[in-house]
Amino acid sequence: MYRPEIKILDCTIRDGGLMNNWEFDKAMVKDVYAGLVAAGVDYVELGYRADKAQFDTKKHGPWRFCDEADLREVAFKDDNTKISVMVDVGRTDYDNFLPAEESIISMFRVATYAKDVDKAIHLGNHIKALGYEISVNIMAASTVLEPELEEALVQLADTDFEVVYLVDSFGYFYSEQIQYLAEKYTTLLKGKQVGIHCHNNQQLAFANTIEGIIKGINYVDGSIFGMGRAAGNCTTELLLGFLKNPKYQLSPVLGLIEKYFLQLHADLQWGYQMPYMVNGILNQHPRTGLEFMDNRMAGKESRSFVDFYNEVRNPDVID
Amino acid sequence: MYRPEIKILDCTIRDGGLMNNWEFDKAMVKDVYAGLVAAGVDYVELGYRADKAQFDTKKHGPWRFCDEADLREVAFKDDNTKISVMVDVGRTDYDNFLPAEESIISMFRVATYAKDVDKAIHLGNHIKALGYEISVNIMAASTVLEPELEEALVQLADTDFEVVYLVDSFGYFYSEQIQYLAEKYTTLLKGKQVGIHCHNNQQLAFANTIEGIIKGINYVDGSIFGMGRAAGNCTTELLLGFLKNPKYQLSPVLGLIEKYFLQLHADLQWGYQMPYMVNGILNQHPRTGLEFMDNRMAGKESRSFVDFYNEVRNPDVID
Repeated sequence: MYRPEIKILDCTIRDGGLMNNWEFDKAMVKDVYAGLVAAGVDYVELGYRADKAQFDTKKHGPWRFCDEADLREVAFKDDNTKISVMVDVGRTDYDNFLPAEESIISMFRVATYAKDVDKAIHLGNHIKALGYEISVNIMAASTVLEPELEEALVQLADTDFEVVYLVDSFGYFYSEQIQYLAEKYTTLLKGKQVGIHCHNNQQLAFANTIEGIIKGINYVDGSIFGMGRAAGNCTTELLLGFLKNPKYQLSPVLGLIEKYFLQLHADLQWGYQMPYMVNGILNQHPRTGLEFMDNRMAGKESRSFVDFYNEVRNPDVID
Repeated sequence: MYRPEIKILDCTIRDGGLMNNWEFDKAMVKDVYAGLVAAGVDYVELGYRADKAQFDTKKHGPWRFCDEADLREVAFKDDNTKISVMVDVGRTDYDNFLPAEESIISMFRVATYAKDVDKAIHLGNHIKALGYEISVNIMAASTVLEPELEEALVQLADTDFEVVYLVDSFGYFYSEQIQYLAEKYTTLLKGKQVGIHCHNNQQLAFANTIEGIIKGINYVDGSIFGMGRAAGNCTTELLLGFLKNPKYQLSPVLGLIEKYFLQLHADLQWGYQMPYMVNGILNQHPRTGLEFMDNRMAGKESRSFVDFYNEVRNPDVID
């Protein structure tokens, strides 16, 4: 697939940080950023800009806050690769943004639930006024009633958001549902760019991202070796292998996987794990799966996979 | 998806045996078989029937040969679950088949390359005459020139094979290619049943199997936790989660994964590994990836992933 409009956004540090509390050391993030630039990735998302009044900077790594000074230690302005940072509705300090011309950040991505889309628009407008690109991720699309989702999309069509992301937070969707929703997003958003962010609970993150591309989606999220919360994401390396734009190079990401991500994966075990698969097929938040995996890795989990499955699919009956 | 014609064939022991030389012990295979029966799986493939004149019985586990006596130690006739065994064209002793009524095997699956389809038909006719169901897997469909593939399908349309399998041996296909080929198979085979066997080099085995189902394919291969050669297969547990036929049960397979397959996977490392991914995107046999992984697991591999990629994508240049 070669469509020059397609943009890869790598969210390894941001989404992967959900698995290690953003405790990536700076030398590693610097190396990852340089590798992604060499790979030709269009956007690199280096973390969240979380409100320090709500989150203690002593208890979380630097990429939960993405202070400008920290970003400048690991990243640089590049002609082809832009830096993005995510902001959560309700967890963001409006006063903690520099004017865009004083920052190396190009884009802020607002993460919201459909019910909070008015707050997301308010936050987006604030950031846009400072000169940044803005996009919005509507999380957990698989649990939103359709009229509510449609209302949110209609509202967003008339905003300054450059991109609206279809997000399969729970790794629940099959290709037919992605096709259906991608058509809905592109239609209701009246030609605005659409993005896609898939989770890999059912080993469908890459496949569903391709389905989105076929349906006209141009902004695709990946992470190195799929690193991300719970089952993780579409992998950046598979996107680089699939997209035929000659600017993309696979080798730098293979090198990063070998240098960092095999060990991180062995330690943190995101990806295709039975508790996350079960959460996915049941269209559930992975918090029960994460608790199970944390306990099991610590040797403190007495339940079997079957116990877990019975418990989460039928909370009132544990057999 | 609920279409009562859909049949799951689990090939864990047969295809997984390619990773451990079929050295599964009998108690384990007995447990796996019973679990797959409990899960409602339609066919369980317990190995190959290899020619003992070509393969030394002392050097391979029992499931490379599937002697009737060995099968009867681990499996039983069940109303809902049938036993299948694979035979390779050119590696099969024609005299080593009981009449079907004296065997607990229901189906033999003939594995062939397109160029050997006449030999496959000859072997299939021999087995069919003994009273068995027969099917044929056309391997490596991604490397066959289209006229040759079409000729094979036209020939097979007029045989007694009950099922013809589309096989993505190298884990190369994307969904659009599966759609294209599934249509070709169903059309040229004139209503004969079509099956699909996908490899997971690009994390697309399950997704491509679903695409096949959408296009009318009714026989789907899976293996527990994806166990199979190199990148492995579509997982049986994902098929059980996807197919809505109430006879299918996920729990027995979750139990087997916990009891056996987590450890087997840690020891043998099939699945999404960078060398296998690289083989997949390059449409190559995984022998180079298997050699790399074997050497690396043995601590004897000096090449990096990037070295490997450069070597296999351009055999004349190693940079």
